[in-house]
Amino acid sequence: MATKRAVILVSGGLDSATALAEARAAGFECYAMSFHYGQRHDEELAAAGRVCDALRVAKHVVIDLNLRSIGGSALTADIEVPKHRDEGTMSAGIPVTYVPARNTVFLSIALGWAETLGAFDLFIGVNAVDYSGYPDCRPEFIAAFETLANLATQVGVEGKGRFQIHTPLIRLTKAEIIRRGVELGVDFGLTHSCYDPTPEGRPCGACDSCILRAKGFAEAGLSDPALKP
Amino acid sequence: MATKRAVILVSGGLDSATALAEARAAGFECYAMSFHYGQRHDEELAAAGRVCDALRVAKHVVIDLNLRSIGGSALTADIEVPKHRDEGTMSAGIPVTYVPARNTVFLSIALGWAETLGAFDLFIGVNAVDYSGYPDCRPEFIAAFETLANLATQVGVEGKGRFQIHTPLIRLTKAEIIRRGVELGVDFGLTHSCYDPTPEGRPCGACDSCILRAKGFAEAGLSDPALKP
Repeated sequence: MATKRAVILVSGGLDSATALAEARAAGFECYAMSFHYGQRHDEELAAAGRVCDALRVAKHVVIDLNLRSIGGSALTADIEVPKHRDEGTMSAGIPVTYVPARNTVFLSIALGWAETLGAFDLFIGVNAVDYSGYPDCRPEFIAAFETLANLATQVGVEGKGRFQIHTPLIRLTKAEIIRRGVELGVDFGLTHSCYDPTPEGRPCGACDSCILRAKGFAEAGLSDPALKP
Repeated sequence: MATKRAVILVSGGLDSATALAEARAAGFECYAMSFHYGQRHDEELAAAGRVCDALRVAKHVVIDLNLRSIGGSALTADIEVPKHRDEGTMSAGIPVTYVPARNTVFLSIALGWAETLGAFDLFIGVNAVDYSGYPDCRPEFIAAFETLANLATQVGVEGKGRFQIHTPLIRLTKAEIIRRGVELGVDFGLTHSCYDPTPEGRPCGACDSCILRAKGFAEAGLSDPALKP
């Protein structure tokens, strides 16, 4: 094939939108994957669709996977999303919004798709700086997954190529991600970060994700286009 | 909790039924997980339900996950299941019935469930002897997944326990698996192995899975109770 393909996990948030823009800037033909995994709201999937359209992906698939049947997270079970927490509290432990093994599951399915597409490059917008409470956002997790990917697959075993997990944002602060996204032409007005939006789909402004997003825009010296009235 | 819990992947075939029986024999409270992943037929899920009932699991969940949207296998796409192959042909390469990254995906979701259950033991009936065409049935794959599991999870990172992936059948021949299953009281008449059953749900007798099953029973000196008229 003329252009190298990459599979990019796109949640609809600002990190994954920037990761997708990085894959595009690196010259990959982009195959985007999102999940309908029993999250509390569909606003983020709508945002994922908008982002994929704007960044002209070759294909966007949404995988249905009901993680509600295993529960265990405020994002997939009837556990309340924490609000108005300060950063000290946020970074003190793994939050209830942690979805057990989520990135392992998402990367595994992305790996299966990559194998059928003849793609060896996977992009995921994980970040270990601003919000390091999630175990499956750390560099050592990503390295272990990359090792696994090359043992788990037909193409890996046959030596037809080597899977690489790209994490262009892993060492960036939220403000740096926002600046980089703007540089790459991402319209953050299309993205959605809130864990617990209003019935009208507006961000709550009080969950950890809203707080970190607001702080990121403030530090980047920019206003958040998603908050336009 | 009084009894240790384990999560067991149960497909409805004879290997996973034996793996479940091993988990039970080892004293675990058994949580069984099956997948409705777009496979060609539902006969194996019916078999999984029968096996879980007979071996009295604490809970059996069936996860909906449409792998058809990524395709790439004779088991999930419109590719013909090969028939009447001899063992030399079977072992010459990775077969079209390989589902890209399937065991990685299944183990990842099982890991998420284990974490919510407080379980650290996962059982999978992979086998690297009789039929080694699948990359994700090899010991090196399992070892890499075990490493990943302990980096990917909250409990792993917090050192509350260590995940272990049990593969009690990995070094056994099909005949040895059958003998061991019988010893543990597994009723193989409840299981289903065929990749491409008749419209009535009867095994085709000609796919790789039927051929290996028949050979296993023959070598074990037993008749296959699933073939009773």
